[in-house]
Amino acid sequence: MPRIAYFGPTGTFTEMALAQLEAAGTFTGEVERIAAVSQSAALEMVRRGEVAGAVVPIESSVEGSIRPTMDALALGDRLQVMAETELDVAFTIVGRPGATLDDVRTVRAYPVATVQVQSWLDRNLPNAVVEPAASNAGAAEDVAAGLADAGVSTALAGERLGLTALASGVADYEGARTRFVLVTEPGPAPARTGNDRTSVVLHLDNVPGSLVRAMTEFATRGIDLTRIESRPTRKEFGTYLFHLDCVGHIDDGLVAEALKALHRFSDVRFLGSWPSAVPGGGAPMPDADDTAWLERLRRGEAGA
Amino acid sequence: MPRIAYFGPTGTFTEMALAQLEAAGTFTGEVERIAAVSQSAALEMVRRGEVAGAVVPIESSVEGSIRPTMDALALGDRLQVMAETELDVAFTIVGRPGATLDDVRTVRAYPVATVQVQSWLDRNLPNAVVEPAASNAGAAEDVAAGLADAGVSTALAGERLGLTALASGVADYEGARTRFVLVTEPGPAPARTGNDRTSVVLHLDNVPGSLVRAMTEFATRGIDLTRIESRPTRKEFGTYLFHLDCVGHIDDGLVAEALKALHRFSDVRFLGSWPSAVPGGGAPMPDADDTAWLERLRRGEAGA
Amino acid sequence: MPRIAYFGPTGTFTEMALAQLEAAGTFTGEVERIAAVSQSAALEMVRRGEVAGAVVPIESSVEGSIRPTMDALALGDRLQVMAETELDVAFTIVGRPGATLDDVRTVRAYPVATVQVQSWLDRNLPNAVVEPAASNAGAAEDVAAGLADAGVSTALAGERLGLTALASGVADYEGARTRFVLVTEPGPAPARTGNDRTSVVLHLDNVPGSLVRAMTEFATRGIDLTRIESRPTRKEFGTYLFHLDCVGHIDDGLVAEALKALHRFSDVRFLGSWPSAVPGGGAPMPDADDTAWLERLRRGEAGA
Amino acid sequence: MPRIAYFGPTGTFTEMALAQLEAAGTFTGEVERIAAVSQSAALEMVRRGEVAGAVVPIESSVEGSIRPTMDALALGDRLQVMAETELDVAFTIVGRPGATLDDVRTVRAYPVATVQVQSWLDRNLPNAVVEPAASNAGAAEDVAAGLADAGVSTALAGERLGLTALASGVADYEGARTRFVLVTEPGPAPARTGNDRTSVVLHLDNVPGSLVRAMTEFATRGIDLTRIESRPTRKEFGTYLFHLDCVGHIDDGLVAEALKALHRFSDVRFLGSWPSAVPGGGAPMPDADDTAWLERLRRGEAGA
Repeated sequence: MPRIAYFGPTGTFTEMALAQLEAAGTFTGEVERIAAVSQSAALEMVRRGEVAGAVVPIESSVEGSIRPTMDALALGDRLQVMAETELDVAFTIVGRPGATLDDVRTVRAYPVATVQVQSWLDRNLPNAVVEPAASNAGAAEDVAAGLADAGVSTALAGERLGLTALASGVADYEGARTRFVLVTEPGPAPARTGNDRTSVVLHLDNVPGSLVRAMTEFATRGIDLTRIESRPTRKEFGTYLFHLDCVGHIDDGLVAEALKALHRFSDVRFLGSWPSAVPGGGAPMPDADDTAWLERLRRGEAGA
Repeated sequence: MPRIAYFGPTGTFTEMALAQLEAAGTFTGEVERIAAVSQSAALEMVRRGEVAGAVVPIESSVEGSIRPTMDALALGDRLQVMAETELDVAFTIVGRPGATLDDVRTVRAYPVATVQVQSWLDRNLPNAVVEPAASNAGAAEDVAAGLADAGVSTALAGERLGLTALASGVADYEGARTRFVLVTEPGPAPARTGNDRTSVVLHLDNVPGSLVRAMTEFATRGIDLTRIESRPTRKEFGTYLFHLDCVGHIDDGLVAEALKALHRFSDVRFLGSWPSAVPGGGAPMPDADDTAWLERLRRGEAGA
Repeated sequence: MPRIAYFGPTGTFTEMALAQLEAAGTFTGEVERIAAVSQSAALEMVRRGEVAGAVVPIESSVEGSIRPTMDALALGDRLQVMAETELDVAFTIVGRPGATLDDVRTVRAYPVATVQVQSWLDRNLPNAVVEPAASNAGAAEDVAAGLADAGVSTALAGERLGLTALASGVADYEGARTRFVLVTEPGPAPARTGNDRTSVVLHLDNVPGSLVRAMTEFATRGIDLTRIESRPTRKEFGTYLFHLDCVGHIDDGLVAEALKALHRFSDVRFLGSWPSAVPGGGAPMPDADDTAWLERLRRGEAGA
Repeated sequence: MPRIAYFGPTGTFTEMALAQLEAAGTFTGEVERIAAVSQSAALEMVRRGEVAGAVVPIESSVEGSIRPTMDALALGDRLQVMAETELDVAFTIVGRPGATLDDVRTVRAYPVATVQVQSWLDRNLPNAVVEPAASNAGAAEDVAAGLADAGVSTALAGERLGLTALASGVADYEGARTRFVLVTEPGPAPARTGNDRTSVVLHLDNVPGSLVRAMTEFATRGIDLTRIESRPTRKEFGTYLFHLDCVGHIDDGLVAEALKALHRFSDVRFLGSWPSAVPGGGAPMPDADDTAWLERLRRGEAGA
């Protein structure tokens, strides 16, 4: 019965993502879900060996990369992503039992959520004061505790706390999605599927052109970069870590080449290769022909 | 008497930045300061012509780019950065008059600030509950309103509200700084000083290698990129806008060339050229020799 | 009556090229043709001011660049190409009056010609000994002087010397052509036509990647390179000069940019911009839009 | 007793190069030297199985690549370079027994040689007529046959024909050298020495930027290109084959990567990997660390 931490409390989208991973057969045996107060707290539980893995959000199609997750992966002992899943993100506005939208004077919302429902709030609750909550589920807890009239939360959190759904399916941006990853101690990557994602963090020397060089190592090999994100090193203004995601797997010949090439001139942290949750989101990069051709040359075959 | 909006309420670091710009002689005549509830609200006031300019934070050495500012500059009518200033960022922990650190059970903090004082809180207030505030000055207002025992705020905000400074100079990261910019309607850029910064937002076609190409336009001209930031388009997962800052001025020949080159294959939003607040933070890029040489060739001089 | 040198003696393809340039109206007034014994001799006459220009072959579609011309342009005082013309190259086999192919035991041929008729000779004169001649017209002179039975020459040379044409239209490679250029002292380039060619010689520092950098200056601007040729510096084994031809004119904005960029890191010799002899062989590269856009930005227009 | 063809006739620099390879222990058993009338004739003898190998000149520090050799290697069945050697090239001016420089009215010279002694001839034999010879040794044969007063030849050729050395050590360019290669049927390359040379011929699609891409495959891997040479395809004006030489060996990991990368987008003819004749002329490119690091990642080691 593996213990898996998640960014809680109960009722968050992250818990739904964990449930989705469980349903997909990611784990052997029933999972014991352990709520953590933050993304970094969940990952620290992995580092300390208290849990077998942690599920955390990593990117939102609206808000971009989830910085606390990025930073917690980039610093501290190396961890590794083993799986991912995506959720459509639409919010439920929860209120006390019997309340209506007209009663709402104060709304609690997790800041990441606020960005995604601001227009809806402007149209439907123009006079309500919006206050920050600690998480999406936390917004519902705040309502249950009497700290606000309504919360921008999840259906699951509202149900568990016996709250009323004042509105559901609330989302300013159609098709908004969030991606979640399962993180564990380093280990062999899941087997290559042909539709995989690989992620690294680069600590580049502060040399003009070094990022161009890093990206060129992917571009010249025809490997698509799917995400590029800079994060400050927090040591000196204008110095950055770079998070790069590409299609492909460490066992794809060209991806392996690109990783080795990066290793030659930069400090590379490998965050894993794992199956993409999006059908067709990756691209196989066969190099069998090239290798066979090279071997024919090495053997000295005339027809090569 | 120019009206200048700033990310308020009164007492924020942004107001201090505005004061610093005033002291530096950025404005003609005395400034009327207009507090805005958010970065985007301040910029919308410029777009609607209600103010002559707005001061907003754009980047923190600890937390990275300030996303609400980036997004508000990238979308809507084009605006332009005309000046910048930087502040050392160290927080003041404010409490009710007469209180001590031992009395603190709840702390309000703006999430950007929380990241920068987390270690201090862990060491000095390990048992206090941290709740989000709407801004650094808002944290002090929350204390004055009795909503929390202490706030992670600014000295200025605490003084104005008659609060006690429980601790000052609080910062986990030594040398933490934040950069603020003055934004106006588009207009001629301030004159080139030889130590300038230029900023653009690129909407790249979803073509592999297009970002490499864009960065190569700077690299091949020897122009340092000082910031690269991706932001989701919010339309489709995996599509991004890129914010690029470089050293130099639109009136530097090579920067002008690079901008024209970007314009040939991408949708470029020019956010301005302005003097850098950091001595030596930029680099002049003379091309007078090259141009003179080309003109000699064009005239057909033998010695060219 | 301009004096124009050409790679002679009379009857060479180069003289035909000069005639073609005259017919095209390249010169004002009737030309006095001055035969020179070599390409470098013709160019030296220009350098010494003895002639107004010189016509020399520069590239063969079969044999590649004409090295004596390349080297004579790369070294010594700078000269400039002002015009070009192309000829179909097919040879006439000339013999003494009354002779037939069966009589031929010895054949004189300019080595550049030998390469282009070797298969014809193998099939038609398999037993004849081939000896080198000093030029294509020289091969006919050798026959007239009784030094050989036949010569690989031009129709013109044979006629002038009263020789018999044993075969005509001889060419191993269908469509073989040679390009000739008119070279003068440096001067303003002929006006841009939209179908132009520009040529430079680069003396690159012996740095790995410097040629890649030079070529990238063209590639990133979408400028086609039409010829790349390395020539030894003759100083140290493995050090080279590079001859690069591109489409476009020094008055095309992007070509001017590329030339300036090369000048920043290498020793560039400009050999000229001139109209291409091949319809559609070049490509106009308008950048009027980019420049207009940049100017709108500089003026601070809102809609830019 | 291996039969080895060489570019003859007897007395050429190429025969000296073959002798040098013999002395270096390149062959097992005594070599039977077979003179060939041209570089391509020597290589065709290899292709037809008449000889075990052929020695041909490939590059001169003064005249650049030896085109007939380049073209003969690029076309026809693939052959492979297995060894190289270099010779200092200084010429001997040979004359009939008893003659002196004052007697010389006509001089025979192989055109490649003429380029290398032109200044000497201008100073020492200003009035002599220079006629082309078929090879350096052929120039001596022409003198022995009474066809000219003097020949620009080799000491060896003069001695064998009983001619007088009118001058020796004749060379306009100090330190002039020529490189010769031993070419055989394809076979396994000689073992990597750490100071090797690798050569390929690329048939690139006629796409702007494809040569830049090819060169970038070497540059991004830190592999020095030591020679770049374009040769016309002879099919269409402006289409080329490219000969590229680099340091390193097909068994160097990075060179193997670069070759595979070229194979992905172009038609690559591998001409061999062999020990460089120049001490320090190559550079080992270890990638053992990179590979070990990648394997640690694949095994999932935490410290990787």
